Amino acid sequence: MADVSISTVSRVVNNSKPVNEDVRKRVMEAIKQTKYRPDVLGEAETRGNTHLIGIIIPHNSNTVLDDFSIGIRNIAELYGYDIIVGLTDGTVESELHYFNLFHELRTLGNIFVGSVLEKEHTEMIHKTGTPCVLAGQQSPNSAIPSVHLDNVTASYEAVTYLIQRGHRQIAMIRASGESAVGGDRYQGYRQALEDAQIPPREEWVVESGFSVEDGSTAMRKIMERASRPTAVFCSTDWMAVGAMNYLHDIGLRVPEDISVIGFDNSFMASIVRPNLTSVEYSGTEIGMTAARHLIKLIKGETVTPHHSNVAHYLMVRESTE
Amino acid sequence: MADVSISTVSRVVNNSKPVNEDVRKRVMEAIKQTKYRPDVLGEAETRGNTHLIGIIIPHNSNTVLDDFSIGIRNIAELYGYDIIVGLTDGTVESELHYFNLFHELRTLGNIFVGSVLEKEHTEMIHKTGTPCVLAGQQSPNSAIPSVHLDNVTASYEAVTYLIQRGHRQIAMIRASGESAVGGDRYQGYRQALEDAQIPPREEWVVESGFSVEDGSTAMRKIMERASRPTAVFCSTDWMAVGAMNYLHDIGLRVPEDISVIGFDNSFMASIVRPNLTSVEYSGTEIGMTAARHLIKLIKGETVTPHHSNVAHYLMVRESTE
Repeated sequence: MADVSISTVSRVVNNSKPVNEDVRKRVMEAIKQTKYRPDVLGEAETRGNTHLIGIIIPHNSNTVLDDFSIGIRNIAELYGYDIIVGLTDGTVESELHYFNLFHELRTLGNIFVGSVLEKEHTEMIHKTGTPCVLAGQQSPNSAIPSVHLDNVTASYEAVTYLIQRGHRQIAMIRASGESAVGGDRYQGYRQALEDAQIPPREEWVVESGFSVEDGSTAMRKIMERASRPTAVFCSTDWMAVGAMNYLHDIGLRVPEDISVIGFDNSFMASIVRPNLTSVEYSGTEIGMTAARHLIKLIKGETVTPHHSNVAHYLMVRESTE
Repeated sequence: MADVSISTVSRVVNNSKPVNEDVRKRVMEAIKQTKYRPDVLGEAETRGNTHLIGIIIPHNSNTVLDDFSIGIRNIAELYGYDIIVGLTDGTVESELHYFNLFHELRTLGNIFVGSVLEKEHTEMIHKTGTPCVLAGQQSPNSAIPSVHLDNVTASYEAVTYLIQRGHRQIAMIRASGESAVGGDRYQGYRQALEDAQIPPREEWVVESGFSVEDGSTAMRKIMERASRPTAVFCSTDWMAVGAMNYLHDIGLRVPEDISVIGFDNSFMASIVRPNLTSVEYSGTEIGMTAARHLIKLIKGETVTPHHSNVAHYLMVRESTE
């Protein structure tokens, strides 16, 4: 456009050698018109093409998911990849938007931290051809590896712990839907009751949203039933903290009157008084494993098995007896 | 490279019309070699060039900063911009890395959520030429607009509230350094004492990190002094929750024995028992204002005044009396 050689453009941009003023103006005008941005920092050149990995993650959801990002970043940096994050509002539409945007930005791979892999996600991943790993759910698709924990067994063990301590009236505040946090954790609860030959009481199972307030509301519903449980198992710590707050506010004591167990062992569990008994696992490890899997995919290698679980255990604190 | 017309490439990529098999192979090979990614989704075409805004923000710091992102996204989406996020570890090095990466990715502007604007940041912003707005601190540079709140006045009012309720022995757990959260909030505390003719006692001012644990440690140090305060003002809610936990654990009651005030009115303030009295302001509004300023800069308009404050007030709850 400026009718000059590439080396002349380079001289103008980098100010490295003297250039005729008229030529300089023509080059600068062309740069302005084409919106070309000189690589003033020189880094892109030495790095070759961009080594970009995208994280698509719901915004402001909870800190366990934040730990995923820490793990992903640790491994990505070790292998020389850069990370960009797309914060979704949790809707499929907003998730697809970021898959699309990251495709335009030419990420080499994406890690998707969503609740459920819908048909639209699978289609989008297929269409863009960008390798993708799921963190925080189990993938039904062997071409899309995933990393989480064994939610059924972890919940089974938490409820079995209550049963071993003598509880037989055990309620559950469960996340709605059939996601890992909703369906799998409920399945473990049911299995533990069944194996202990305790008849399930559906009036003690209340669905809840993810906020602390939602947990309080669910606890209120349970306490309004004809008979009261002696313990409550919750799908997440946040729901459990809401449950404990409701019990505190109506004058009941945890654990003397009711035991409470959470899930995720988030920072909240050790901050609240009494401290919360909760299922511990490492979100950072989930992120690290997901990143390692993604890097394998980017290099054209196969990930087997296509789903991995990180370790878990019940961290017993003050909220149970 | 494939020696065919653009419309032929389009036919191959979009699979829209029949193409000779040999031609198809040549086009696919060229695509592979040039790493050209066909815009299979068609969106980039209709949008013209990318309208990208970058957020550079410390990872996992606290939820007030998360609110900034919500506000930025609201406004950015309204004006048709896409958002990508770079999560830093809070070091200048990691912040500069993202300024550089976002320059390569051709963001039209960036919002920088950091603690202090260092000389290196200013130089980087100048070198890349990408418009930048600061959120969460006051800019010393009129070319870089900023949005926060009036931290000195907000702290002055919180401490004055304690004085009006009869307190004269008021400690402070303050963030280290001369940032808004450290320096400005301490300045307001000092000014309030001075105006009430209460002699400052430096042994009651303890510096602290940002975690709940750091707050507990700072509270312990204060309680080990020869005489005890009747109230403590904290630079952040997290420090305040740590302080309350320490007091709870040694058997003191809040507010009967000691009043506690936090800052930020984060979600934590209403979750903990007793609820925390805290300085409220809208992080979302800070984000929204920062985004509006950035869009002005991108359009080549001037932002005056170059620093804006959002509103604040003291939200009185159960932790003070």
